[in-house]
Order: sequence, then structure tokens, then C-alpha cells
Amino acid sequence: MTSSLIGCRIERVEVNIAVAKVNKYASSESGDTVEAVERPNGGVSVVLADGQTSGRGAKAVSMMVTRKVIALLAEGVRDGAAARAASDALFTEKKGQVISTLNIASVDLHSGTIVLTRNNPAPVFVSRGEKPDCLGAESVPLGTSRDVRPVITEMEIVPGLMIVVYTDGLVHAGARRGQPMDACEVISSVLEEQDPGPQELADILLAHAVNLDSNRPADDISVVVMKVDHQTGDDVRRMSIRLPIVH
Amino acid sequence: MTSSLIGCRIERVEVNIAVAKVNKYASSESGDTVEAVERPNGGVSVVLADGQTSGRGAKAVSMMVTRKVIALLAEGVRDGAAARAASDALFTEKKGQVISTLNIASVDLHSGTIVLTRNNPAPVFVSRGEKPDCLGAESVPLGTSRDVRPVITEMEIVPGLMIVVYTDGLVHAGARRGQPMDACEVISSVLEEQDPGPQELADILLAHAVNLDSNRPADDISVVVMKVDHQTGDDVRRMSIRLPIVH
Repeated sequence: MTSSLIGCRIERVEVNIAVAKVNKYASSESGDTVEAVERPNGGVSVVLADGQTSGRGAKAVSMMVTRKVIALLAEGVRDGAAARAASDALFTEKKGQVISTLNIASVDLHSGTIVLTRNNPAPVFVSRGEKPDCLGAESVPLGTSRDVRPVITEMEIVPGLMIVVYTDGLVHAGARRGQPMDACEVISSVLEEQDPGPQELADILLAHAVNLDSNRPADDISVVVMKVDHQTGDDVRRMSIRLPIVH
Repeated sequence: MTSSLIGCRIERVEVNIAVAKVNKYASSESGDTVEAVERPNGGVSVVLADGQTSGRGAKAVSMMVTRKVIALLAEGVRDGAAARAASDALFTEKKGQVISTLNIASVDLHSGTIVLTRNNPAPVFVSRGEKPDCLGAESVPLGTSRDVRPVITEMEIVPGLMIVVYTDGLVHAGARRGQPMDACEVISSVLEEQDPGPQELADILLAHAVNLDSNRPADDISVVVMKVDHQTGDDVRRMSIRLPIVH
């Protein structure tokens, strides 16, 4: 009886996601695109693409990739299949001449897992409570050849889980001055010293990178942080967006 | 000379958008769907749909409408045309038997305006500094007939502008007890007394509505608040999402 009662205990958790994004210095368009979309069987996916080079051309590529992926996810297509479809579409359209990185971070309530899909040489940081991990298995961008496969990692939605996904702007920050940023290392040390919320962590990483580039980012930089916590407070779903505009 | 210099002055503003959303009491699926998508010519659109009835069927309808609209917006289709296309698609698929409300709130950096598209009897609240306004011109939901036209309102992106868009769950809150909520009235009085940020205002409205329904919302309720301010702080674009989960 006791164990079945325990088995029936409803556990409430919440996932908090934060995105922070800056453009390359003196560039009005970011080559990075980040979109979030609701999953038809429950949950949310965040899609992050970085088109080759920067400025207008790169933006068009990353938007095309992101648009393709969110349209497929919204129809219930699995993350890996959506990534492969976007790669084939890009390869077909650009004949292998233009590539784009892609990351999909999904809170999949159907499977009860977080699914990370990566076509990006830049690693993904994962921390399950105490143990930080830098998922850096080889992974190629979309559009490089036919039949590009993503690296997929699936994990339980458990309180304490923290995931950080980023574009190569974060990895290359400081490279111009010969001090490239070790993103995983920086995240680990921030988490050792502090207990930042997702937005705070994203902001700290972005500020660190921009600082390494002497306040003139050498590339577009995007950071996505996903954190699972015990639920505090109400059942309200929330989203907020801040959009700075230069008239 | 002076006037041309003034004309050249760069004005930095920021748009802050907040969404808050609760399900009908004891319903695990919300019939409301809210998505935000980047506009290909710059800016962001927030798309809010409320499918007829509640639960699974309504969710499928509002997701279908939202998916259609964000796919078209991402391709550069104008808001009004996207709304009409979604209406035709819904009418064709459901033969006029199922309807859905739709609101699109766009920050359009191409035209430098905010564009409000409405196929929803529920009004939209707009305040330009001192002057609150309740945009309530007659507007029919999507899918009711062929050639449904949205009501479109376009306005300059100027600091002090505040817009509140909501589904009928907010309007019908308290109706069960014979005390339906006058959303525009409540927003006006909150703004007279306080100077809430977008998330705070969305939360206040939701809490007020849930309270009128004795903490058991009679319908799904979604609120979108958009606020234009002078830019304070950095050039970082930010997004955050909170997703409560019942395991």
C-alpha cells in the first residue's frame, strides 16, 4: 500500500529556459536564429541555427533552416528526422556550398525526456546536479553532404538538470586576441561559485564572451540555457521577450 | 541644419513582451496556443489562437491555426494575408463547423510599426501614454465562412505604448458567478494605480481572472502584453520561458 501510494505521488517540476543573443559588432543582422515552438504532443522545443558567414546571407540561411525545423516539429515530426530534412533541403538548395549549424533542445512531455539534437561542432554543456559534462562528440553542420546525421542525447527531466547550448560565437570569443574561450570550463566555474538562474547564466556567458572580444563581438553569439527545478509557485506558463531596436 | 541633425538622432527603444497562460480547471490541455516567431524582415510576431470548446480538440485546432500563421509570417507573408489564409484552411478542413479566434501582435521593423491583427470578438487594449483605448470593433473568428477579414490596427513604435491582447477566457472570467470581468476596465485601473512591467501586468490580470472564477478557471486564459520603452541597458535580445510540468 505504502509503495503504491508513493508511486502515485505527483511530482511537480518546472523547466525554465533562457535565451540571450547579440550580433557581431557593427552588424545589424545576426546570422544566428533562435525560435521556440510548442510540441504538438506536449512540451517545447528551442531551435538554434547559425548560418555560414555573417550578415544578410547567413541570416537567410539560418532562418530557412529554423523555419523548416519548427514547421516539422509542429507537425509532430521527431527532432532527428526534422534535422535531417532541414539538412537535405539546405544541401539541395545550396548544392553543398552553404552550411549551417543546428541545435534543437526539446522538453518532450510525450516521452518525459529532454532531447538534445546537435549538428554543430560546438559542444553542449550538461550538468546533472554535481556532475558537469561537456558533450563534444564529433558532429557536422547541416548542408555539408547528403545524409548528415545529428548527434542525439536524451535524458530524464529531473530537478537539478542544467543544459547550455551555444553557437560558435561563444567558442571563438577571444580567438582574435589568442585567448579563445573554453565555454564548458567557464560554465563549470560559474556554477561552482554561484547558483545562477537560466537568464542570469546566459547573460554571464554572453558578457564574458563580449568582454574577451573587447566589447566588439567578432561573431554573432547565442546562448540557450535550460534548467529543471522543483516547481515553485503557480501553474502559469510564461514567456517573455526583450527586443532592443535602433530606429 | 538643426532639424536635419535632430532627424538623424538615433533613438533606441526596446519592446518587451510577456505572455501568461493557464488551463481551464482540471484540464491538462489548453485550447489556447501562443507562439512567437521572428519576422524575416526584422521584428517579432506573437500569434495567439483559441480553438472552439476546450481540451484536445480545441488544442488541435488552435495549434493548426497558429502553425499555419507562423509558417506564413516566417516566409514574409503579411499579417492580414496570413490570417485570411489560416481562416480559409480551417474553413476548408472543418467545413465551417469549427472556429478559432486569432490575434497577431507584430513588431514590424520593416515598416517601423506595431501591427495588430484581430479575428476575435474580445477587444484589444491599447494605451499610448495617458490615453487608454479599448479596440472593440466587430470582429469574427476564423473558419466561420469564406473570406473572413481581420480587423487590422497599425501604430508607431513609440515609448509609452502598451498593448494587451487576450483570449475570451479573460472576458468570461467570473461570468459563472454573474460578475464577468471587464478586462479593459481592469487594465485601465491597474495602470492608473501602478506602473507594472509587462510580465507583472499579465500576471495581475491572470490572477484577477482566476480569482473571479474561485481559483478554478472556467476556460483557458491567455494574456499577451507588449510594451515599448526607451532602451535601458544593453543590446542583448532575450527570451525566457517557464514551463510547469505535472509528472
